[in-house]
Amino acid sequence: MNILDTIFSHRSIRKYKNQKIENQLLNHIIHAGTCASTTGNMQVYSIIVTSDETIKESLSPIHFNQPMIKEAPVIMTFCADFNRFNKWCLQRNATPGFDNFLSFMTAAIDALLVAQNVSIAAEANGLGICYIGTVIYNADKIIEILKLPKGVVPVAAITLGYPDENPDLTDRLFFQDIMHQEVYKDYTSEDIDKIYYEKEHSDFYQNFIKENSKETLAQVFTDVRYKKSDNEHFSKVLLKVLKQQGFLTNESVC
Amino acid sequence: MNILDTIFSHRSIRKYKNQKIENQLLNHIIHAGTCASTTGNMQVYSIIVTSDETIKESLSPIHFNQPMIKEAPVIMTFCADFNRFNKWCLQRNATPGFDNFLSFMTAAIDALLVAQNVSIAAEANGLGICYIGTVIYNADKIIEILKLPKGVVPVAAITLGYPDENPDLTDRLFFQDIMHQEVYKDYTSEDIDKIYYEKEHSDFYQNFIKENSKETLAQVFTDVRYKKSDNEHFSKVLLKVLKQQGFLTNESVC
Repeated sequence: MNILDTIFSHRSIRKYKNQKIENQLLNHIIHAGTCASTTGNMQVYSIIVTSDETIKESLSPIHFNQPMIKEAPVIMTFCADFNRFNKWCLQRNATPGFDNFLSFMTAAIDALLVAQNVSIAAEANGLGICYIGTVIYNADKIIEILKLPKGVVPVAAITLGYPDENPDLTDRLFFQDIMHQEVYKDYTSEDIDKIYYEKEHSDFYQNFIKENSKETLAQVFTDVRYKKSDNEHFSKVLLKVLKQQGFLTNESVC
Repeated sequence: MNILDTIFSHRSIRKYKNQKIENQLLNHIIHAGTCASTTGNMQVYSIIVTSDETIKESLSPIHFNQPMIKEAPVIMTFCADFNRFNKWCLQRNATPGFDNFLSFMTAAIDALLVAQNVSIAAEANGLGICYIGTVIYNADKIIEILKLPKGVVPVAAITLGYPDENPDLTDRLFFQDIMHQEVYKDYTSEDIDKIYYEKEHSDFYQNFIKENSKETLAQVFTDVRYKKSDNEHFSKVLLKVLKQQGFLTNESVC
């Protein structure tokens, strides 16, 4: 498929055929991942490729039991990983100084660019993918199940398989509304009304509001889907994980 | 160009022709950016497109005066952005709860997947790009120059233009060395020796070690390029930025 067709026709696929992904294809798309830009060519990331039924079973509740976790033939977890690099430094008479927040972000950025390369390469080869946002909510439990050592933190995961559905494209804001010329131009209340008008007035979201028994679409996000109390709880968990995995050694987060 | 050719032939381009990028093409690749996956379809990111000479001039020292900053016709800065979404919530009788670390990571992930979509779309259209890692080192200064309001943090930036060089592909670790089957298999010291063997023994890196007056390649990374003291300094700056931009409201980092 043409590259831009692939990018422009992206939809999250949540239903998969009962069909394995050939190893050769998996290797090919992971190889595509390693072609992404990486800070200083350090490649401080790892990819865990999970297809074992028992492991997927134990990952399922962590991802809020979304059926696709068990149904997709493969789950790939993309990790910020300074473990490999640190070990190399120590074996080469070099003292690594990557036990801090900046280094976590460096490695997380590496891992996320790789994740998107892998996703696009997968889609260009006829596979479907869906990002699993919950991976950063329950990083502590994923670390346990996937046996991630110190220096390794999961930052993204995707389900992967041959699509068994053909959903419409997801609505998006107009690109003009997310871009700024030269510097950031802050939004007026009129801008905001205009930007979200189409979304708010679509039948789809009108039903979505009713289903969630809310007055406005924004309330579905703040009161149902991404509640302040949940965000605060999972923030604490994630910061604890960074500390535990060795990325907040001198900075204490209280 | 075929999508996989584009991905597999990626090289960072640091020299650009003195040739503007047509607005239509810029819009097209930014549109491609908005097709990336985003948590809950919230699209909590923004892209700043900078081509003004004076602004590029002021960004230059922040990016350690790399010549490409001034020479590239365009710099795109990708930001984690809850500002737009928060304003919308407030205008719709909804109370946003995104002033925390989890929400920063959610928005940063959104922005980074978009950045990679934009980069690939740019390359597929004959443009060259180079990620500027320094964007997270000096986020505080970028916020000032690009006038980023509360709720907005830059997480990636690229230079963009028509290539005026044709560098070789950058060496990468074998994909087998960054992937793990089912769960993480930690590296033995033999694994580490094997993984870095080719890199360490290439003429390119042998010269690189000499130029930097070091004994091992790893030491160039730990003692010259990514020093512990620098990492710690910039970690503090970045955490302060998160606090200042409203993403560490209840978590104090000391």
